[in-house]
Amino acid sequence: MITVLAGGVGAAKFLQGLVKIVDPSEVTVIVNTGDDVELHGLYISPDVDTVTYTLAGLADEARGWGLRDETWECLAALKRLGHETWFNLGDRDMGLHIHRTQRLRDGATLSEVAAEVASALGVGCRILPMSDQRVETRIKTRDGDLGFQEYLVKRGAGDPVQAIDFAGIEDARPADGVTSAIEEAQGIVIAPSNPLISIGPILAVKGIREALAGCKAPVVAVSPIVGGKAIKGPAADMMQALGLEVSAYQVAELYRDFLDAFILDYADADSLERVRGLGIKAIATDTIMKALPQKMALARSALRALGVESK
Amino acid sequence: MITVLAGGVGAAKFLQGLVKIVDPSEVTVIVNTGDDVELHGLYISPDVDTVTYTLAGLADEARGWGLRDETWECLAALKRLGHETWFNLGDRDMGLHIHRTQRLRDGATLSEVAAEVASALGVGCRILPMSDQRVETRIKTRDGDLGFQEYLVKRGAGDPVQAIDFAGIEDARPADGVTSAIEEAQGIVIAPSNPLISIGPILAVKGIREALAGCKAPVVAVSPIVGGKAIKGPAADMMQALGLEVSAYQVAELYRDFLDAFILDYADADSLERVRGLGIKAIATDTIMKALPQKMALARSALRALGVESK
Repeated sequence: MITVLAGGVGAAKFLQGLVKIVDPSEVTVIVNTGDDVELHGLYISPDVDTVTYTLAGLADEARGWGLRDETWECLAALKRLGHETWFNLGDRDMGLHIHRTQRLRDGATLSEVAAEVASALGVGCRILPMSDQRVETRIKTRDGDLGFQEYLVKRGAGDPVQAIDFAGIEDARPADGVTSAIEEAQGIVIAPSNPLISIGPILAVKGIREALAGCKAPVVAVSPIVGGKAIKGPAADMMQALGLEVSAYQVAELYRDFLDAFILDYADADSLERVRGLGIKAIATDTIMKALPQKMALARSALRALGVESK
Repeated sequence: MITVLAGGVGAAKFLQGLVKIVDPSEVTVIVNTGDDVELHGLYISPDVDTVTYTLAGLADEARGWGLRDETWECLAALKRLGHETWFNLGDRDMGLHIHRTQRLRDGATLSEVAAEVASALGVGCRILPMSDQRVETRIKTRDGDLGFQEYLVKRGAGDPVQAIDFAGIEDARPADGVTSAIEEAQGIVIAPSNPLISIGPILAVKGIREALAGCKAPVVAVSPIVGGKAIKGPAADMMQALGLEVSAYQVAELYRDFLDAFILDYADADSLERVRGLGIKAIATDTIMKALPQKMALARSALRALGVESK
């Protein structure tokens, strides 16, 4: 079994490649829920949905979020009724949020809902939210504390970040199956996701970082930073604002207590020795996943680093 | 001020005519909420919405429910996630239900939401749900108790009706403004709606029937039964099943304790004397509202019966 820690789009692309070279039923994905947000009274899990939609073959990959061939009538109606609509929600996507919200109010857990939805949409992997408790990534800025989606989508990630806080993290426990998916894995992959606000919240849930450090299986991470820039999203700006070096090396350094191997891009090949200096096996390859062949090749590199055979 | 007691489609058509001949701001509509239903975790008020959408000029009048030019993607997504979808909800309609559900959970009342929505959609009348408490019309059949929408939409009104019950009616109070709208009206109209399950629940809310019987203003009803048949919906079958005569006269008889005047169709002109025998002024006219001129003419007949001047 391969266990993958995942944020949104970057992780989803990597997983598309992975499920082509290992049986999807052998893959467990532990997904960040720090980005979750309640809007219009609906509970929205952007990273869980991005991973699910992408693996179901329904995602709009060109746009980078949401479903292909969406319509937007429901949101237009909400706008007419006075709602803020800075967070785009298509009509079919809205169906999922209505479903999740109803199930949660009926007492289901986030992980039960994630499993049901994955099954209904034909996703063969196991998708586990990191926790069934509410953890909320808050971005501290000069204008005060912002919810993550408010920071990212509403304000375009334009506010200098002073600090990142995971509200609720003290009371969050790993969702059922998360710890065992780490302890029983043959290999673990940290997907190429933002280390601060995608992987960071997962690692901050009590017990998960310790499980990674203590598990028998090797752990490999794929760098989301290439040539000093983030492939997507605000990772680079955030790292800089928090006084971190914006580099692949820095990502490896953030994970050094549990990392066995690190995959960085050829563009950062001059950092290989520096990563190895952390006692981490370092591999350079092409990490830009434009289409399925690159996604599969990157997944293959990760499995090779883990010493796991692939199809 | 004119106050109208209303169910769904028949009442909405009558109101379209009425607001053309009196200033909409002079019209208060008290709407049945016994048909309300919770589906997909969303609170749906079919009669309030039909009246609101119709007066906003947004209703699909040819189809007889919902909005014009709707799309159906959200419901399709819910179906894929395993939801029953016998109650059609379009994407824009869904926006309203999401809005109402959020507002109710935030502590707003049904009547506050109805007023906000009417205002947002540009409706000039005051729209008042009969009560802010939950009243649920239940249809007793051989197969057990059915919710009204389940009886009507899911099962096509095919079950013989043994009894009608308004669950929660003992604890329901008229919504703010309902009693004063009756007491202070210049005239009151009972719209051509089902007397048992559209007007019936309104009359069953504690104090409303008494207010109608005791008010100074004249009360006129328009018959929804023409030539022994309901213009729309299951009124005729229901009346028959409950041992009532299926006739315009029977409708007048159900309202006799508060009715001053009754408008029936030319087709039922032979019942004029019988209605007058109840001590009720009876008027025959054309009550079939195909287009705006007939709607306006019927509203004008009602105002004339009330002794109220129109534009």
